[in-house]
Amino acid sequence: MSTAGLLIRCKAAVAWESGKPLSIEEVEVAPPQKNEVRIKILFTSLCHTDVYFWDAKGQNPLFPRILGHEAGGIVESVGEGVTDLEPGDHVLPIFTGECKECAHCLSEESNMCDLLRINTDRGEMLHDGKSRFSINGKPIYHFLGTSTFSEYTVVHVGQVAKINPDAPLDKVCVLSCGMSTGFGATVNVAKPKKGQSVAIFGLGAVGLAAAEGARVSGASRIIGVDLNPSRFEQAKKFGVTEFVNPKDHNKPVQEVIAEMTGGGVDRSVECTGSIQAMISAFECVHDGWGVAVLVGVPNKDDAFKTHPVNLLNERTLKGTFFGNYKPRTDIPAVVERYMNKELELDKFITHSVPFSEIYKAFELMLAGEGLRCVIRMDA
Amino acid sequence: MSTAGLLIRCKAAVAWESGKPLSIEEVEVAPPQKNEVRIKILFTSLCHTDVYFWDAKGQNPLFPRILGHEAGGIVESVGEGVTDLEPGDHVLPIFTGECKECAHCLSEESNMCDLLRINTDRGEMLHDGKSRFSINGKPIYHFLGTSTFSEYTVVHVGQVAKINPDAPLDKVCVLSCGMSTGFGATVNVAKPKKGQSVAIFGLGAVGLAAAEGARVSGASRIIGVDLNPSRFEQAKKFGVTEFVNPKDHNKPVQEVIAEMTGGGVDRSVECTGSIQAMISAFECVHDGWGVAVLVGVPNKDDAFKTHPVNLLNERTLKGTFFGNYKPRTDIPAVVERYMNKELELDKFITHSVPFSEIYKAFELMLAGEGLRCVIRMDA
Repeated sequence: MSTAGLLIRCKAAVAWESGKPLSIEEVEVAPPQKNEVRIKILFTSLCHTDVYFWDAKGQNPLFPRILGHEAGGIVESVGEGVTDLEPGDHVLPIFTGECKECAHCLSEESNMCDLLRINTDRGEMLHDGKSRFSINGKPIYHFLGTSTFSEYTVVHVGQVAKINPDAPLDKVCVLSCGMSTGFGATVNVAKPKKGQSVAIFGLGAVGLAAAEGARVSGASRIIGVDLNPSRFEQAKKFGVTEFVNPKDHNKPVQEVIAEMTGGGVDRSVECTGSIQAMISAFECVHDGWGVAVLVGVPNKDDAFKTHPVNLLNERTLKGTFFGNYKPRTDIPAVVERYMNKELELDKFITHSVPFSEIYKAFELMLAGEGLRCVIRMDA
Repeated sequence: MSTAGLLIRCKAAVAWESGKPLSIEEVEVAPPQKNEVRIKILFTSLCHTDVYFWDAKGQNPLFPRILGHEAGGIVESVGEGVTDLEPGDHVLPIFTGECKECAHCLSEESNMCDLLRINTDRGEMLHDGKSRFSINGKPIYHFLGTSTFSEYTVVHVGQVAKINPDAPLDKVCVLSCGMSTGFGATVNVAKPKKGQSVAIFGLGAVGLAAAEGARVSGASRIIGVDLNPSRFEQAKKFGVTEFVNPKDHNKPVQEVIAEMTGGGVDRSVECTGSIQAMISAFECVHDGWGVAVLVGVPNKDDAFKTHPVNLLNERTLKGTFFGNYKPRTDIPAVVERYMNKELELDKFITHSVPFSEIYKAFELMLAGEGLRCVIRMDA
């Protein structure tokens, strides 16, 4: 029996207040409205951003809320005006959108859609400023327009990437956010040439995805930089060839890297968000041609500071957001790179838990263990 | 009668001490040694860098010295090992070189030759650490390896661009430094697309050459930024369509430009060297795709400072040196762009004086009058 147009009752993990364990509850999910899609989520994974907004320190707390934004699912029904998706389509919901009409969407270079750019403060749908989730009539806020910690969710069509139905959703779900962010930062923005050297600052999941981008690009040396030496062993599986722990040296890490490489690496990708790492990542690239790419999100009071001669000596500094991928246009092709066995995703998925044990995914992330924990919604 | 292999006596303008008028003297110019070329200079123009090192404030003074680095001339003779130049060739000496063998010269992206990169402290030739200039046996220092304020000079072959002999040397001499620096910053580094908007910070000769690059690229809007409103009228001849004087506004100029352009210009080029202008030039480009290019040389204690979110929102910050042109490989083609009437140079040459009146060129520059004063060596 079709559920289209009907209210769906299903399980969702609700964050009732900041920092308190999620509670799995029965919620009501309203039908999708204009330009919206209702998706049956099959797999979702936990990203630092979920934990950050669950913890909600230094932010406007918005609760109760259904978190979650890395996921894969199947379209259950579509709202008015949705023409390029239909029930049964396999999709990845994405935390930032692509309206295909604004100046950013029309630019070949930008993925920072004016209409659907990430908005962490918004808890309702754009169409009518209301939530599609409720419990006994009381609205529950959305998160990033995705709220994938629910068996069903409603997402703006501009935030839905339609992918190859043969792609295993329990693997490609991680392309919704972190893996695409790191991989794209390297392949779309740093663009190392075959044989070049690449430094990766931060060997968490996003940094290792950036390393994966360097490996796929044919980098000759991939230098991993991290303050935590326990990450080095794991990073070898991601093609990282050398390691530098800034704590092991009594000079700036950019000088250590310049000495290792005869003047600097060809490319660097910064995935920590530490302002000092950003400066080091920039200053460690070779003069004449070096390109540094910033991915990590800094504190709001940080200032990037360098001597302008570092720029005048023909270094390039760029930042990126979601690996410069346009969610609807580009992500299906990233899924194909996985299907073609070019991009390896399985090694990022270190844990898997049933939805009923979503708290374990939080525990693993808070303990800094593993890379991605996939949550199985049907279990 | 050939003068090859012989010492040449000729006139040169000698800077005996910092800030004192140049003195035109008879100097001896030794024959070119290994990998050197002796050039008869026909036209030279005055650039701010000559005045800066003549004034020599805050530097290691190196006197007596023959200044000058923007020039055109004809090869008189060549030293051992020089195979790609011969007497009679029309050439531009360049203040930075291209050995064609180092990592920078072998890279497609860099023009910062390891062997012959600009060196303002060196006063002698690389080959033997000696000067080719003397007066009564007393050596006179070289400047930037070019020393073009002399009827004859000796230059390393790696600093000599062989150009079309039909090109008028009294015009293309300005491509030795400033005009190529500004033009290349736009066409090689900022690379505006047809129809895009470009902001130029600083409307001196280099900034106007950057504007010329924007005009040639088909920019739809060229916004000139300068603290001196008297420069605006002249700038119109260079395709500048709008003007912003930061003094006229009580908010940062980057905000003014963002309002004028619906979020920021597509490209900006900074040609002042003021650290505040550098920061404004970066922050005034549009998120998603904006590219800011730094050309101006800052004070050595300056720090470039911005919030990293300005980068993460997909802005690019690059610096350039000599417009990213490789002197020997690329400058002949820039001369051709002038010959094809694509690049307009004549409008940069606002004054011309005979060599005997070189002091007038200094007076004009110190008074901030005109753009380029060409000095005729044979007059």
